[in-house]
Amino acid sequence: MVKLNQLRKDNPLIICITNDVVKNFTANGLLALGASPAMATERQEMDEFLAHAGALLINIGSIEEGDKENMLQAAAFANKHHVPIVLDPVACGASKFRKDFCLRLLNEHHISVIRGNASELAALADDATMKGTDADQSLSTESVARRAYDKFKTAIIATGAVDAICQDGQIMLVENGTPMLTKVTGGGCLLGAVVASFIYNETKPSLALLTEAIATYTIAAERAAHSANGTLPGHFAVNLIDQLYLIQQDDIAKESRVKEV
Amino acid sequence: MVKLNQLRKDNPLIICITNDVVKNFTANGLLALGASPAMATERQEMDEFLAHAGALLINIGSIEEGDKENMLQAAAFANKHHVPIVLDPVACGASKFRKDFCLRLLNEHHISVIRGNASELAALADDATMKGTDADQSLSTESVARRAYDKFKTAIIATGAVDAICQDGQIMLVENGTPMLTKVTGGGCLLGAVVASFIYNETKPSLALLTEAIATYTIAAERAAHSANGTLPGHFAVNLIDQLYLIQQDDIAKESRVKEV
Amino acid sequence: MVKLNQLRKDNPLIICITNDVVKNFTANGLLALGASPAMATERQEMDEFLAHAGALLINIGSIEEGDKENMLQAAAFANKHHVPIVLDPVACGASKFRKDFCLRLLNEHHISVIRGNASELAALADDATMKGTDADQSLSTESVARRAYDKFKTAIIATGAVDAICQDGQIMLVENGTPMLTKVTGGGCLLGAVVASFIYNETKPSLALLTEAIATYTIAAERAAHSANGTLPGHFAVNLIDQLYLIQQDDIAKESRVKEV
Repeated sequence: MVKLNQLRKDNPLIICITNDVVKNFTANGLLALGASPAMATERQEMDEFLAHAGALLINIGSIEEGDKENMLQAAAFANKHHVPIVLDPVACGASKFRKDFCLRLLNEHHISVIRGNASELAALADDATMKGTDADQSLSTESVARRAYDKFKTAIIATGAVDAICQDGQIMLVENGTPMLTKVTGGGCLLGAVVASFIYNETKPSLALLTEAIATYTIAAERAAHSANGTLPGHFAVNLIDQLYLIQQDDIAKESRVKEV
Repeated sequence: MVKLNQLRKDNPLIICITNDVVKNFTANGLLALGASPAMATERQEMDEFLAHAGALLINIGSIEEGDKENMLQAAAFANKHHVPIVLDPVACGASKFRKDFCLRLLNEHHISVIRGNASELAALADDATMKGTDADQSLSTESVARRAYDKFKTAIIATGAVDAICQDGQIMLVENGTPMLTKVTGGGCLLGAVVASFIYNETKPSLALLTEAIATYTIAAERAAHSANGTLPGHFAVNLIDQLYLIQQDDIAKESRVKEV
Repeated sequence: MVKLNQLRKDNPLIICITNDVVKNFTANGLLALGASPAMATERQEMDEFLAHAGALLINIGSIEEGDKENMLQAAAFANKHHVPIVLDPVACGASKFRKDFCLRLLNEHHISVIRGNASELAALADDATMKGTDADQSLSTESVARRAYDKFKTAIIATGAVDAICQDGQIMLVENGTPMLTKVTGGGCLLGAVVASFIYNETKPSLALLTEAIATYTIAAERAAHSANGTLPGHFAVNLIDQLYLIQQDDIAKESRVKEV
């Protein structure tokens, strides 16, 4: 686990096509971490932006029909420039519209990482359905990560009480985190953006690198929950930005609770 | 006043088609309260989302021509699934474009509650005009609520220094609240979303239920203003999310200042 | 430097067509300062909104093809009603799409102030390019402000470690500020909106007025950085809203570090 210092030195440009609800939170989170977010979406400028970018995040949280072409074109330019793509298939089990789009994106372009909750990944991998944006807590992130990996043959991050990461068929579990992440909007969306920030320039990120990204974020979240008023959601969200700014590479090695299975 | 515990147990899905300025604040407020917000807008997925939803909020704060069809279709699907709709006619007195759209929505679909400030409701009920989004403080919320009720024959919530609620021709006044709500953007918009959260599954909410929703929100706001730095707008907004999370059903009965007129 | 009290008394309506990332932060900042923000964008209502407006902000941070016509029409109505326009050409050096649009806007309509970082202004004035949204720190704000003024013959605000303002060929430097402004998204965008708030009704704002706007904002930012946890980005953003609310006209005269060159 050795990338955070390098990330802060390189300050990679991360293009975030993300939902309207979390754009501010996402941009502030990435700035705090040490990346350089740009929330550009227009396809006419994507070739130029992606030529300098370290990674592309596509989060479909507030997707409308008119956004699809921008997302598809961005993915094509990212592939052209060998820029890794993180897909966050928000609520893809809640509508055919969302699921069809995700499957089309996965079919037509190379996606480096899919980051979702267990219900979202089950919808993609198993045809499960879901109500709104929340996860079914009874699903195992480990098993759904494996099934999604088997289907899409790309890195999977299944987040929940325990986060499961699958790459090359191997699974890593991260037990860090706090239930406060489910009390603020964008707790998962920001994690997807943090993953994009860590994997800049690597279209096939290693299991270790993905694990470091998740551990960094979830340890920062634990610290945010333990800071002043951090068990209240308004203050927790503010503290989380602070802790992404404060966290150091050494903290991650000391505080991470990670196991390979 | 007995719904808050039930709301937290049922965790109703609230579809929020709301303005770009307050999406994050609204989602965080509803999560803190105990509802499950989804900020979906695309009409192709509305039938599926509304099939599982408890309520639909339509807030026109940042409406563009291209949003109208999504809002109208969402209203149609909400009516089909017997999902109550709360309309927040932001700044509807400031342009013909906004007012015409609100009147069309009210004419073509069943709206369960209209939530606005006195100037917005006067624009709908009396053809008054307004400058931007702010309310004329000289208008009486009580009288404008009654006039809007008489015109639209649906529940009206007129917010201001004193909030007036009219249902079935009866009026309830809620004197709780704080001027700090006017110092942050979305103070009224979030209230509309809170109302939607309380009335889930009830297309004709009672005066008592609407009163509980307003009392819950305005008492949380009073507490936010009395918390650390709560008389400063940056901290007040953070505190308000915290207080929506902390408030308990018993607090409302003790602290509400409500009177029937 | 004498406008802040008058601004708070007049509470001017400021129409903000700004990017999706900073709409909430911008609206809260202007409310705290004492202006009345309205984030309306639809061209069908712009004539009515601008008839009552004090200023128009056009910030292209998240511009898509479909936004261009709304921005151009808004500019036309602002010119018709003699409402000053502030243009914030976010990342205009990062794509031809952005730069062409800014040049078209500047060519077809009267813009009262252009507010950008050194890289953005160099892109407009000198055909320089840039990566994403961040400024090249080696560029001098003073020299780029002068070159942009020479090209566009309208007031220029070049923000950086030292902010440079050019009007009528004269330059003022403002040394107030804090690096924390670069750690939160929208630090520059909100400044553009604050400038719009100060210059209401003045299509040719004086150098002194523009200087007061910048000094007010950067002194509030200094105070935010010195308030509790203000060296952490999450709390800094909250504190900045508070300090825009607290700052008084007298503070600006005492704390500003301004020099004419």
